[in-house]
Amino acid sequence: MSQPSQDHILVIDDEPVVRESLAVYLSDSGFKVDTARSGDEGLALFRNNKPDLVICDLRMPLVDGLDVLKAINSESSETPVIVVSGQGSMNDVVTALRNGAVDYLFKPLIEMEVLEHSVRRALERGHLLKQNRQIREQLELTNAELERSLDLLEEDQEAGRRVQLRMLPPTPHVFNETCHFSHRIIPSLYLSGDFVDYFRIGPDRIGFYLADVSGHGASSAFVTVFLKSLTNRIQRHYEKRAASNTLSPARLMRDINKELISMAMGKHLAMFCGVVDLTENKLIYCIGAHFPPPILINDGVASALEGRGLPVGIFSDATFEDIVIPLAQKFSLVAMSDGVLEVLPEGSMEAREAHLLQVVSQGPKDADALASLLQVDGDMEVPDDIALLVVNRNE
Amino acid sequence: MSQPSQDHILVIDDEPVVRESLAVYLSDSGFKVDTARSGDEGLALFRNNKPDLVICDLRMPLVDGLDVLKAINSESSETPVIVVSGQGSMNDVVTALRNGAVDYLFKPLIEMEVLEHSVRRALERGHLLKQNRQIREQLELTNAELERSLDLLEEDQEAGRRVQLRMLPPTPHVFNETCHFSHRIIPSLYLSGDFVDYFRIGPDRIGFYLADVSGHGASSAFVTVFLKSLTNRIQRHYEKRAASNTLSPARLMRDINKELISMAMGKHLAMFCGVVDLTENKLIYCIGAHFPPPILINDGVASALEGRGLPVGIFSDATFEDIVIPLAQKFSLVAMSDGVLEVLPEGSMEAREAHLLQVVSQGPKDADALASLLQVDGDMEVPDDIALLVVNRNE
Repeated sequence: MSQPSQDHILVIDDEPVVRESLAVYLSDSGFKVDTARSGDEGLALFRNNKPDLVICDLRMPLVDGLDVLKAINSESSETPVIVVSGQGSMNDVVTALRNGAVDYLFKPLIEMEVLEHSVRRALERGHLLKQNRQIREQLELTNAELERSLDLLEEDQEAGRRVQLRMLPPTPHVFNETCHFSHRIIPSLYLSGDFVDYFRIGPDRIGFYLADVSGHGASSAFVTVFLKSLTNRIQRHYEKRAASNTLSPARLMRDINKELISMAMGKHLAMFCGVVDLTENKLIYCIGAHFPPPILINDGVASALEGRGLPVGIFSDATFEDIVIPLAQKFSLVAMSDGVLEVLPEGSMEAREAHLLQVVSQGPKDADALASLLQVDGDMEVPDDIALLVVNRNE
Repeated sequence: MSQPSQDHILVIDDEPVVRESLAVYLSDSGFKVDTARSGDEGLALFRNNKPDLVICDLRMPLVDGLDVLKAINSESSETPVIVVSGQGSMNDVVTALRNGAVDYLFKPLIEMEVLEHSVRRALERGHLLKQNRQIREQLELTNAELERSLDLLEEDQEAGRRVQLRMLPPTPHVFNETCHFSHRIIPSLYLSGDFVDYFRIGPDRIGFYLADVSGHGASSAFVTVFLKSLTNRIQRHYEKRAASNTLSPARLMRDINKELISMAMGKHLAMFCGVVDLTENKLIYCIGAHFPPPILINDGVASALEGRGLPVGIFSDATFEDIVIPLAQKFSLVAMSDGVLEVLPEGSMEAREAHLLQVVSQGPKDADALASLLQVDGDMEVPDDIALLVVNRNE
């Protein structure tokens, strides 16, 4: 470890020859040197010039070296003091070390190299202590700053997340005492680009969708607000009017496609949208690039729903197609966003789809149960947002 | 600085008495001690046990102390070595110090306290060096981790910001070759809860609004997406139809009020919404808790627009009121969100409003010019989002 050579040394000795030879040698070695002829003068210079190190003869008239050592130690315990003692005065040395001297030298001071070694070692200790303190202060400062920035952003995202959670429908929710809807969103960050909604659109009809916006985080979450505002409107439309004609998922997706393009957010989405008709026992649905395919269990028989369709929000002339299939009295419908594929055991896409089919066949009673089966429970970190939607009718 | 007393010391000396007395004293002082009878044995133990410090006699048969010192220094330069020399062999000491010994002691070793001082000082140096390194490593690790988290969130917010910017109208934008609209949004974080839009709603009519969502950041930015989606729809409505009846700002705000409440985002907003009619030369506007009041300069005469109204998104039965005022051939209209009040010179609210009136009276040609006059230019940090909207017709 190098030290700046402008270190400042105070030499206190009543013998002119010793004092001057020390001063000359240390100056030649690159130190800045003050000299004092007595303990009194030495202490005055010490208080005035605040040297980095003091070399002090132990035996001096009036104020002797031990007094100087004690005074310096009480006033500035970090300043190293090297004491100089007569040959063989080991008792003096021990007393000095007990009183805080960092090192000792015996007169005559012939081997100046030994002296310089002692000086540099003592200074190094001071530099190390100082460096430790500086690094620690720097550490605390930088960390505090980073943490402040992080807290600010986390708070912001957390607030956004709370608003996003408010836009999600209640889970679980039972329609007409028989039809259970539930969902679970596991965001990869705070804000999710996956979104789920379900809402009544007539006495016996429930509209629902699961959407996966391209990307994730804040920018994708924006699009979920857009979706919610749009479907909210549709929901209110059906609330107000006698539900003579039902909602067409394909038409809704066509509208979303148009409006999303006009929003110019540079985002598109995959979507599975449907209407469950509890009286006519049918499912009307439309798929827009949603993957993996939703799974329907009709009377215990599980199968993947057909249909692919275009992504929503890219092609202004995109059309979508409704598919109608019958629902058994007892059915389950499960939809998952593609984020789920990334947390499944390694394997080909076919293997993973088969795995999902097998998991869903176990008949999870709600989205939380499905999350457990998929082992995406708790606060686990996921690489992409995951949305789960589970619909069950058991009667 | 305290050091753990389990420091491990290796004593190498061919004289049994010296070796044993050192071992006993150091053990009693709380150190773990190994002893070696020769340089060879010492080096073997050193390599095996990796002691924290070595005390080595300089004069030994075969492998002497200097060889041991050199070997240790080349293999582990951080391990301090204290050499023990015969009384008066200053040349040996100098050679040892040159070869990396941290300290020296003269035989006979009577003052064990001096020895212990030397040992502790040498160990302290090692501990300080180690601590320095550890603190530095800790610093780098913690900082890297914090920075990673911060980068992730900043990236996310930045992406959100880009999407939000895309939703803002072009600035400046000229309608009918005469009417200049421009805006400037200065977010307090990345995402803004302030929003501005303007759009044609007929051959000679331009709709516009400035909204300030409660709070700021991601959660408030969500509401701006909702606003954009809603007004986008209105814009398209007017695009499609012959504009027989014009947009009523009060009615638009009533709709926004209802829809925002139904979104249940827990957010409300202040809003200034209007229609500039370039043929009939009038401004139809509505204010919902927007503050400070917009400023209109008609033929060089500046005045604050009247009207307060309720905030939007709180009261489901809130009503709003259109106000119509004539526009001079040459007019300026300036609206600012209340964030601007926080960057004005200190003073009473009246004084700040007067200040704004004075600034606007200077006739900034667009929102950027207004930002300069208000000194909210560049990347300055602002405590609350600031939105500026400037409309000018000069003919």
